[in-house]
Amino acid sequence: MKLGYLGPAGTYSEEAAYNYEPDAELVAYSSIPAVVNAVEKREIDQCVVPIENSLHGAITDVLDFLVRTDDIMIAGELAVPIDHCLMVKPGTSITDITVVYSHPQSLGQSRIYLEGTLGHARAVASLSNAQAVIDMQESDAVAGAIGPRRAAEIYGAEVVAEAIQDNPNNYTRFVVLDDTDRPPTGHDMTSVAFQFSEDEPGLLYRALGVLRENSINMVKIESRPTGERLGRYTFLIDMELHRADPIGRETIEKLRAMSSWFKVFGSYPRMEELPIRGEA
Amino acid sequence: MKLGYLGPAGTYSEEAAYNYEPDAELVAYSSIPAVVNAVEKREIDQCVVPIENSLHGAITDVLDFLVRTDDIMIAGELAVPIDHCLMVKPGTSITDITVVYSHPQSLGQSRIYLEGTLGHARAVASLSNAQAVIDMQESDAVAGAIGPRRAAEIYGAEVVAEAIQDNPNNYTRFVVLDDTDRPPTGHDMTSVAFQFSEDEPGLLYRALGVLRENSINMVKIESRPTGERLGRYTFLIDMELHRADPIGRETIEKLRAMSSWFKVFGSYPRMEELPIRGEA
Repeated sequence: MKLGYLGPAGTYSEEAAYNYEPDAELVAYSSIPAVVNAVEKREIDQCVVPIENSLHGAITDVLDFLVRTDDIMIAGELAVPIDHCLMVKPGTSITDITVVYSHPQSLGQSRIYLEGTLGHARAVASLSNAQAVIDMQESDAVAGAIGPRRAAEIYGAEVVAEAIQDNPNNYTRFVVLDDTDRPPTGHDMTSVAFQFSEDEPGLLYRALGVLRENSINMVKIESRPTGERLGRYTFLIDMELHRADPIGRETIEKLRAMSSWFKVFGSYPRMEELPIRGEA
Repeated sequence: MKLGYLGPAGTYSEEAAYNYEPDAELVAYSSIPAVVNAVEKREIDQCVVPIENSLHGAITDVLDFLVRTDDIMIAGELAVPIDHCLMVKPGTSITDITVVYSHPQSLGQSRIYLEGTLGHARAVASLSNAQAVIDMQESDAVAGAIGPRRAAEIYGAEVVAEAIQDNPNNYTRFVVLDDTDRPPTGHDMTSVAFQFSEDEPGLLYRALGVLRENSINMVKIESRPTGERLGRYTFLIDMELHRADPIGRETIEKLRAMSSWFKVFGSYPRMEELPIRGEA
């Protein structure tokens, strides 16, 4: 089984792919379109892509891609804690570090630790958390890198501090994409997208009313621009139902009937609720 | 009157600030927090910041900032067409161009023109559309830059092609931030944000029902993560009402009563509907 992800090796995306299927052959791709096209062409069986972060919100590139593509469905979801580690060349002491490499977002998420413990070090941007480890290893200065534990394992770095991110509830949700979705398990999620014709305000309210009537829990709503003009949106909803269940079928038919454009992204087993972690 | 914007001079943000108040003294700041803080400290009277693009969606940094800040209100809105121009050193011919500079997003938005007319030129990323003009002028190669007409005027470049973006309906909506909002005009918009307590699903439907009951048009809904955990959102709604009108006051009190956290970003004159432009 070949499982694609957004590379390089040592990113949180690779960690997600590994967690989803430890026995899979993991294949790195350089962009979201590249990894999804590889599934479409059956070069790989599935891929794992990030769709939402608990601090930064939706990964809009992925949502927009799902709106546009026709041959790909969501077959699963999983969340990965974004636990930033500080890593160094083996034997280096934290107090000697003069430069810290990481992706700018990871540097921003570790501000308290950087200012408190590494106030003497200069922060330098890398292209990815994995690249940061390579930059650290190639640096002439005594350097550190911030990234996932898996990057340290892959590149032979030593982890000297763990979970250094400001907010302990930093999670990224990933979806598994395949050419088909999954059969009902009794605990499923369905992701859909729809647009309304321009001249009917209040349709979103009526659409949510369809869910309410059938006591269906809506877990998430996003709006994305259609690209036609300011103020025209595609709505994306995640709801607790399976499209093959009788109530799922009925709900989806009602939503489809009131939309000018409608698409099911897929039905798939819902992941477990995540524990809330205490403040750092 | 001093009006702040996200610099440098020659960006679409400066164009928005100029269009909003041509007689103002425009003051450039290097970040959203910096320009908003300058309003809070009364170093400047108002600022203009981007909040939404018709192709890429919400400017989430600005939304998140509005959720967090207490002393700033939305006092107006305006849209600016993102009409990318190709500009060169005066006298340069398009066919001689070997390098094209721009912000990566602008390069991506001008793909058809770049591949069709400038297939022979190499695309190089600049930090902003304004910086691209400087990079072009300092380049040893025969270079072009992609950016707003205003950048060409400021930096003395010659515009050799106009509206080269793939999608003619590329607009960015800006909001004007001030320490107070605006009195009713009869054609107003109000932006609010709210969160629900965790254990009451269906509240978003009830909230939209409050608007429906009062025949209030909702123009926009966004969800942003609260940062507490995956699946907890702040909802942001733009609706056609003024918070000082009787029906506005009633609507806002009802929404506030069903929310665990509620905030009015402000009431302000609604901008005119934008024309839809034909495909390029």
